[in-house]
This record gives sequence, C-alpha cells and structure tokens, in this order.
Amino acid sequence: MNFPKSIEDLIVQFMKYPGVGRKTAERFVFHTINKMDKESVKELSETLTQLKERINYCKVCNNLTDKEVCHICSNEKRDQSIILIVESPKDVFSIEDTSQYKGLYHVLNGVLSPADGIGPEELNLKTLWDRVAEKKVKEIIIATSSTQEGETTALYIKRVLQDTDLTVSRIGYGVPVGLNLEYADQLTLSKAIENRKKF
Amino acid sequence: MNFPKSIEDLIVQFMKYPGVGRKTAERFVFHTINKMDKESVKELSETLTQLKERINYCKVCNNLTDKEVCHICSNEKRDQSIILIVESPKDVFSIEDTSQYKGLYHVLNGVLSPADGIGPEELNLKTLWDRVAEKKVKEIIIATSSTQEGETTALYIKRVLQDTDLTVSRIGYGVPVGLNLEYADQLTLSKAIENRKKF
Repeated sequence: MNFPKSIEDLIVQFMKYPGVGRKTAERFVFHTINKMDKESVKELSETLTQLKERINYCKVCNNLTDKEVCHICSNEKRDQSIILIVESPKDVFSIEDTSQYKGLYHVLNGVLSPADGIGPEELNLKTLWDRVAEKKVKEIIIATSSTQEGETTALYIKRVLQDTDLTVSRIGYGVPVGLNLEYADQLTLSKAIENRKKF
Repeated sequence: MNFPKSIEDLIVQFMKYPGVGRKTAERFVFHTINKMDKESVKELSETLTQLKERINYCKVCNNLTDKEVCHICSNEKRDQSIILIVESPKDVFSIEDTSQYKGLYHVLNGVLSPADGIGPEELNLKTLWDRVAEKKVKEIIIATSSTQEGETTALYIKRVLQDTDLTVSRIGYGVPVGLNLEYADQLTLSKAIENRKKF
C-alpha cells in the first residue's frame, strides 16, 4: 500500500483500537482528512492527551474520576451501607445507567486468574478489606462477570468475608452466562441487581 | 450518563467517526485509558494534528499527498498516456492495491449531484481539461462508482470529450451495481479495469 507516511501512521494507530481492522482504520483516516476541519482534529487531539492527564482512580473505590474521590463516593445521599463489587470502571458506568442502584461501588480492576499470574495481590482488594473494617458497610453485592474467573473471584471474596456479619450477595438472574458485564443491556443489569441472591 | 467530563468529551468526539455508535466510542475511550500508555496516546494525538498539517492535494491529479506533486504523477515510469478518473483519493489507493494499473489518475473529489447543488464547477474538472489539452494523453478511463451520480458524472465527462480524438472508456464488468468503489475488493477492481469498455 502506497499511502503517504502521515496517513499510514494514523491507520496503524487506529488499528490498535478493539474491533478496528485495516479497512475501518482507513475509513477513519479518510474521514479525518475529508470531513473534519483543522479545528475538530485539534480538539480531538487535545481531548486525547487531556484524558490521560486528568483521569485517575478514585482513592476510595478505584473508579475512574477527574477528582481525588469520585462523584459516587463523595455523594452523601448514596447508601453508605452497601458496596457493589465490579471488575472494571466500565461496569460502574453500566450499572449507573440503570439508575436503580443507590449504594457505593468497589472496582477490583481485574479478576483472579491464576493461569495469567493474577492473584489477590494484583486486584484492588486491600482497600476493600479496609472499607469493610470501618464497619459502616452492612451488605456486599458481588457483580463480577459470570465467567469462570468472575466466579472464582466472587467465591474468593465470599470466603474472606464469611466470618464477618456482612450480608454477601451475588447478582444473579439476568446476566447471561459467559458474557462480560459490559455487554449486558440496562434491563438485564437492573434485573440482575434486583434479583440478587444470598451468596 | 455520569462519565467524568474528559471521558464524555472523548466519547462524543469518537462518535463523529463513521459507524461508531455510543457503545463503540465508550469501548475506544476505555481502551485508551486502560490499555494505552501515556506515550501511545501522545503519539496518536500528534499523528492526528500532523496529518492535517502535512497532507494536501496533488496539484496535478488532486490525489492526497505529503508533497506538492504526488508519488504517482511524479513517477516517470507510469504510462503518461492514460488517465483514470476516480471520485476520491481513497479510490486511487484501492486501485493501486491491485498493482495492475500503470497509468496516471485524476481525482474529481465528488460526483455530479444536481439535487445537492453539486455541478461541474464543484468538481475538480478544470484541471482535467487542462491535462487533456496538453495532448500527452491518449486514453481516459472513467472509474466513477456505478451509482446514479457516478454514471451521470461519467456521461458528462464523455460528452465533453466526445469531439477530441481520445479513447474514452468506462470500467465495467466487475464492480457490483450500486456499490461505492471503496467497498470493492481487489480482484473485482482488477477485473473491472481489465474489462473496461469503450464508452
């Protein structure tokens, strides 16, 4: 392919995005050239760099935020007695979209996966035990994916907490088996939270 | 949706790309946050702005290039007696990919579409007549899409050139009717050029 270097460079970089093959990347680049003015491209370029500068992890729940403590942890109207545990920040946003859950979150940033060398130390668990130790929490809802790793992680957390007087539940009905949480629709997620069962 | 502003801003900007809906844009943004380091994001950001600064149109054929005259027009080994007319720079790259065509190109940057107010003045036609007037060209191949606008444009060019002694042909067999040229595969494009017919 004989694209000028600046075009080829951008194609290769767009191809790093999930689901973007060569043809799609080419379309993106030609869209950038033909349909976007200099100002829009500059804006996109700046938004990209700002994202990396401004976004960090909430020091309480590890959710993505542009503050020190995220807007959920710092919202006193949220039910401080429930923590819902998810794998990734994206899951927080998916569940927030249902407008049904009013408690707090805890983001693990992964799941246990011994085969990949991911043990409890690699997950954001220490801060969870710290939060539990503060005794304000009465219930833990585990919302890891219904994949093998997600189930293993849920079981691990359940076992650690089994001698506390916390209610530990697992979201259940609704999330199709083997599906990553991020692909679940809002209704399924709502149902899954509503129908949580004791774990 | 309660995304932090820097995330929401980038989602909205990714959604401007063709075929990118909200879910896909969100995945791109989370990929940017979780899987790309600061250096890669900076590189992408810079490539985007450089693209707009460096890429311009070849002053001979109107193809995209980072020079004044593109690498095809300035290549003396190309057959200077044939000009293949396409709608967009993307079509040039598609045809180049077949490695079968050895002549020159002319990019119209659009097609005639009276309904949208696009007449001959809006297309890159004046420079085509200038090139034809130089008398080096013996054959014109019209490779506009087989859409209604593409056909109208082909007919228009044919009519303007009918009193010259140029051979005017139209790519034919191969390109499915109603399909934009950019979606045609390499074999189809090769066939279409090989089987061009006098127009």
